Amino acid sequence: MPSSLLSPSLARECEAVVPVDTARLDTAQTHLDSLTKPLGSLGRLEDMARQLYGIQGKAPLEARPARMFTIAGDHGVVAEGVAASPKEVTILMVLNFLRGGAGVNCLCEAAGADIRVVDAGVDAEPFQPHPRLIDAKIARGTANMAKGPAMTPEQCVRALQLGIDLAETAHKDGIRVLGTGEMGIGNTTSSSALFCAYLGFSALDMTGMGAGIPPAGLGHKTKIIQQSLNVNREAVAGGDPIAVLAALGGFEIAALAGLIIGGAARNMAVMIDGFIATAAYVAAAQLAPAVRDYCFFCHGSAEAGHGKALEALGQKPLLDLGMRLGEGTGAALGFTLLDGAARIYNDMATFESAGIFL
Amino acid sequence: MPSSLLSPSLARECEAVVPVDTARLDTAQTHLDSLTKPLGSLGRLEDMARQLYGIQGKAPLEARPARMFTIAGDHGVVAEGVAASPKEVTILMVLNFLRGGAGVNCLCEAAGADIRVVDAGVDAEPFQPHPRLIDAKIARGTANMAKGPAMTPEQCVRALQLGIDLAETAHKDGIRVLGTGEMGIGNTTSSSALFCAYLGFSALDMTGMGAGIPPAGLGHKTKIIQQSLNVNREAVAGGDPIAVLAALGGFEIAALAGLIIGGAARNMAVMIDGFIATAAYVAAAQLAPAVRDYCFFCHGSAEAGHGKALEALGQKPLLDLGMRLGEGTGAALGFTLLDGAARIYNDMATFESAGIFL
Repeated sequence: MPSSLLSPSLARECEAVVPVDTARLDTAQTHLDSLTKPLGSLGRLEDMARQLYGIQGKAPLEARPARMFTIAGDHGVVAEGVAASPKEVTILMVLNFLRGGAGVNCLCEAAGADIRVVDAGVDAEPFQPHPRLIDAKIARGTANMAKGPAMTPEQCVRALQLGIDLAETAHKDGIRVLGTGEMGIGNTTSSSALFCAYLGFSALDMTGMGAGIPPAGLGHKTKIIQQSLNVNREAVAGGDPIAVLAALGGFEIAALAGLIIGGAARNMAVMIDGFIATAAYVAAAQLAPAVRDYCFFCHGSAEAGHGKALEALGQKPLLDLGMRLGEGTGAALGFTLLDGAARIYNDMATFESAGIFL
Repeated sequence: MPSSLLSPSLARECEAVVPVDTARLDTAQTHLDSLTKPLGSLGRLEDMARQLYGIQGKAPLEARPARMFTIAGDHGVVAEGVAASPKEVTILMVLNFLRGGAGVNCLCEAAGADIRVVDAGVDAEPFQPHPRLIDAKIARGTANMAKGPAMTPEQCVRALQLGIDLAETAHKDGIRVLGTGEMGIGNTTSSSALFCAYLGFSALDMTGMGAGIPPAGLGHKTKIIQQSLNVNREAVAGGDPIAVLAALGGFEIAALAGLIIGGAARNMAVMIDGFIATAAYVAAAQLAPAVRDYCFFCHGSAEAGHGKALEALGQKPLLDLGMRLGEGTGAALGFTLLDGAARIYNDMATFESAGIFL
């Protein structure tokens, strides 16, 4: 459903996300079927190429340049003891991203993609300027969603707009593919609550170990997710997507939702990472359902609940490598798959050009 | 079981394939657990890094340079009408590989790997010299395995030795990772027969569509596989791995088996592609069981039977993208995953270096 809380700018963005022209998919399929291989024998690489042609509408397909946005924010709900790590780890990991020492840095390097680290709401003083850093702090962490809404609607709209702005700048920089990364201690708890509110799952269905809480902590985490849904029942029952996102989301999650919308509105491919990025996708799809056509679900997270959420969305992830790190690591692997798919589309000989007539 | 048909050179190679030192795996795990991520949160990328450290025994891990060998051979059994394409497609695809227009070329380019195209037994006059071509034709195609052994034991040993020689040259060139690609109209039929003979599957279990035979052709293909097993029952029942490979294999399959053994003997990582490369792996593992420690099973082919064969081997493939092209396309994607795994191992900050003390 549309939201009554949309700003005029956000409303324009959502309207700009239109389904891809299905005639393009037929054009792409015809080309794929002319390439020197048995029909369909490159499986999901062909699906990716077809989808990318749907987005871009012309050949050669452009899977580069690609940019990862690893967006960070803190969560008030960590006060309830739902996370394996202290909240300060968000700060330390942002510094790690800036120094290039995190998993997502290594995998972006492998993929030939650049990375921006965005402070959307880390509970710290602003970070020192850095070429990779985008300082866009909305507040020092969200409020505790187990006691009330995590964000005000205004904060949530600002975070969505931040994501739009990131997409716009990337587009001006010539970026063709976006990656959705995140960091925020406590953000699996927030994402679980969003999946419950948007997709109708139970808290139990969506509770997982996050960054590694012990099995004994799972019951408590489930209880806090349920409590957050209860406390915010008015927003949840009302069903306004932005009210739900404000109540249960986080600054980085709302910014990712904006990034997805802004990317789709500008005909960029958007690589969806794992559990948290998928929650952001669901929020984005509530506001602009056609984002679906622009998104690639890169990997199935080992976080419990991700498989169920993807199934509810009718999506089968590209990779299933037992990863559950977040940061954008799965999306970075997706960059390399998309590059392969584009090269297949662009560079393979056709039966005709190879002189093969069967 | 060992083979009575081993040449002294092959016997030395098989003996040189020793299990990796498990102490190395512990060393690698300790390092992986010191990196700035929740324990185990990079899933199978961590498994790959650990295995590569087991193979190489030192850091930094080297996932490059990587070289794909796409080895081609023809199969006499195509006379039985088991293949979707005429035999001449093997020739045309070799030319396509040399010109860089095939799927495996595109994916090797994406992975930053080079490629060698090997004529191990194409039914054609020798190809014109080309920088990517290795002319090592043993014969113009195998004999028809539905009427008798596909190769003589001597031919089979020559093909195995060819693979060893390819590994040796690659090793001298400084290559650290090998890819196992193949081309040969009819070679899913041969591979199916090998899985039956080596692993005890029925012909029905292992019959698939190959490059696209219509469903109506599957019964005939099954019948020919069964007939080949019957005609060669002495070799199959005798259980000598080389006699089985000679009876039911192909020049490219035996050469791949040699490549796997020769690669493992020289501490190279070997990326196993799909259905046919896995059949070559099974042959190699019969002769030198420790090849297992050096091999990465890159993708689950959509070819019926591959999943069952991998399960029998206790292997879960890294990728499941519905691909069934062969050529080395799945192994080429494996190159990029291994590169990511190595970068994780080499370049991620440790908690200590990042100043994170939890």
